[in-house]
Amino acid sequence: MKKGGVPAGEQGRDKMKKILVLMELNAAQRKKLEAAGAGAELSFSRPDRVSEEEIQAANVIIGLPRAEMIKASENLELLQLESAGTDAYIVPGMLNEKTILTNATGAYSQAVAEHAFALTLMLQKKLHLYRDEQRAAHWRDRGMVSSLRGSVVAVVGLGDIGSYYARLVKNMGAYVIGVKRRPSACPEYVDELMLTEQLDAVLPRADVIMSVLPNTAATRYIYTVGSFRLMKDSAIFINCGRGNAVSASTLYEVLSQGLIAAAGIDVSETEPLPEDSPLWGLENLVITPHVSGSHHLPETVDRIVDICAGNLCSFLRGEKLINLVDFSTGYRK
Amino acid sequence: MKKGGVPAGEQGRDKMKKILVLMELNAAQRKKLEAAGAGAELSFSRPDRVSEEEIQAANVIIGLPRAEMIKASENLELLQLESAGTDAYIVPGMLNEKTILTNATGAYSQAVAEHAFALTLMLQKKLHLYRDEQRAAHWRDRGMVSSLRGSVVAVVGLGDIGSYYARLVKNMGAYVIGVKRRPSACPEYVDELMLTEQLDAVLPRADVIMSVLPNTAATRYIYTVGSFRLMKDSAIFINCGRGNAVSASTLYEVLSQGLIAAAGIDVSETEPLPEDSPLWGLENLVITPHVSGSHHLPETVDRIVDICAGNLCSFLRGEKLINLVDFSTGYRK
Repeated sequence: MKKGGVPAGEQGRDKMKKILVLMELNAAQRKKLEAAGAGAELSFSRPDRVSEEEIQAANVIIGLPRAEMIKASENLELLQLESAGTDAYIVPGMLNEKTILTNATGAYSQAVAEHAFALTLMLQKKLHLYRDEQRAAHWRDRGMVSSLRGSVVAVVGLGDIGSYYARLVKNMGAYVIGVKRRPSACPEYVDELMLTEQLDAVLPRADVIMSVLPNTAATRYIYTVGSFRLMKDSAIFINCGRGNAVSASTLYEVLSQGLIAAAGIDVSETEPLPEDSPLWGLENLVITPHVSGSHHLPETVDRIVDICAGNLCSFLRGEKLINLVDFSTGYRK
Repeated sequence: MKKGGVPAGEQGRDKMKKILVLMELNAAQRKKLEAAGAGAELSFSRPDRVSEEEIQAANVIIGLPRAEMIKASENLELLQLESAGTDAYIVPGMLNEKTILTNATGAYSQAVAEHAFALTLMLQKKLHLYRDEQRAAHWRDRGMVSSLRGSVVAVVGLGDIGSYYARLVKNMGAYVIGVKRRPSACPEYVDELMLTEQLDAVLPRADVIMSVLPNTAATRYIYTVGSFRLMKDSAIFINCGRGNAVSASTLYEVLSQGLIAAAGIDVSETEPLPEDSPLWGLENLVITPHVSGSHHLPETVDRIVDICAGNLCSFLRGEKLINLVDFSTGYRK
């Protein structure tokens, strides 16, 4: 690599940034990162294969290194995560003070929102009950269903995922109430905007409550038995955010008592959900094992790579990065 | 009832049309029919309670009378069905030649299309497999999923239901190929229009095939094992039309061999599906018991009543009716 006519010698090499990529990529995705890292020293490995020396030498790491290997490395200038979650890396002392942390918020919106949307429709049309009947070879009518058309849907947490989901249900003819932390202008895919502190006023109005809250002190156990008592007994509750927004015991209590009609969760207070949890056996609860936000949709990895390549390029040019993580919340600033 | 100043005597009464309503209705729906039938003699009953004398005396029947009670009644001028299906009534000799037959096509579009849409998403997101895992208390990742965004969806049968479904998948970002019997202009919610005779050219291109064909000689067993061989091995097949579009043995063969990824059916060749059918046990098949088109969505009955009230009103005024049934096909002319 030449810069300003100076030949790239050993000295030039020393100044080349060491970029360590720990993601599984296809050829096109790898090529995209290589193009973004032109002029730097790129190496590719995997979290379970990379050595601590390689981690310690890296100026930029892209992916999800084992947090305990980082040891506040002084060489690490940028850690670009491939996840939206940052829990393991914002622990005090885990990263050196000068290390910039960025995540892949936004890349998972389509996958998670579509999963939450599919759960919503499955519960509205009682397809979980028909699956159970099928296993018993029962041709049995399970009665009334509901529709998103004309329903009131509360989207609690109006980030990228919540906004994507809001668009999907709005397209089906729902009336959408967006619930968010801070006041803002009402987006065109939301009919009404409310603040998180007004949640208790929203819950009684909603036919569907889709929660996609991050894990913060303010959102921990935000849904109590009292919250569910405020909901319609016909309400459907979906949680595709973090499991500790509602405790397993609360969920069991309200669903076994039929305080609401049904719930669908992709996250649980403890993950994996323990084998002896009584939640598994609830007919009116659908459980998926935290799969909505993984790499199961090919488009997700493409978007992660776009974010990583963009930030790598900006970093090498000394330009502004996107998806900077706020260490006090663990989420995008 | 007075007409042109003539007092309504016994003679006037004799000329009043006898309208027999055999539907279960709420107060608002009943009121709507009473308003439409003003000037006629309305009575309300149920198919399982009405006497053969009442059936024989009626000039108009609204609902689903037992076909064998009609005996080609000479009094019956209009039979307005509350269903879209007409199979029992178009048998030669069942209705008098002068009886007009109308159905409730259109009323079920939202309910059936949404059910088919929910089945599509359930299969794409593998929620049927997660339901199975849940019953075994397994927190187990089932791998890759797909999305309607960017998928090619073939909608085979582009009537009211197919068109409604086409709009829903188009809103999700799908490329929609509509397949219909007769050439027409391409509606805005369809990307490409093909004829039923071109079906074999459409099947290899589709990620999702949603079939909602009526029961006619031309559609009986239209999907053969060969048809499924033409499909992608990742294809999802949905049938919410009539069960005999594909035989149970064909469905079993292609799904147990994994010729396509998965299927969802609300109809089967024999209904109820026999308890010993091997179809019940297929992991990659979701079965619902012909419930998509029943009265499980409150909006459906409202729309049926709108059609019945409109036709009753038109009939009494001697105006043109809608949803006239073509006896050669059993469907709307």
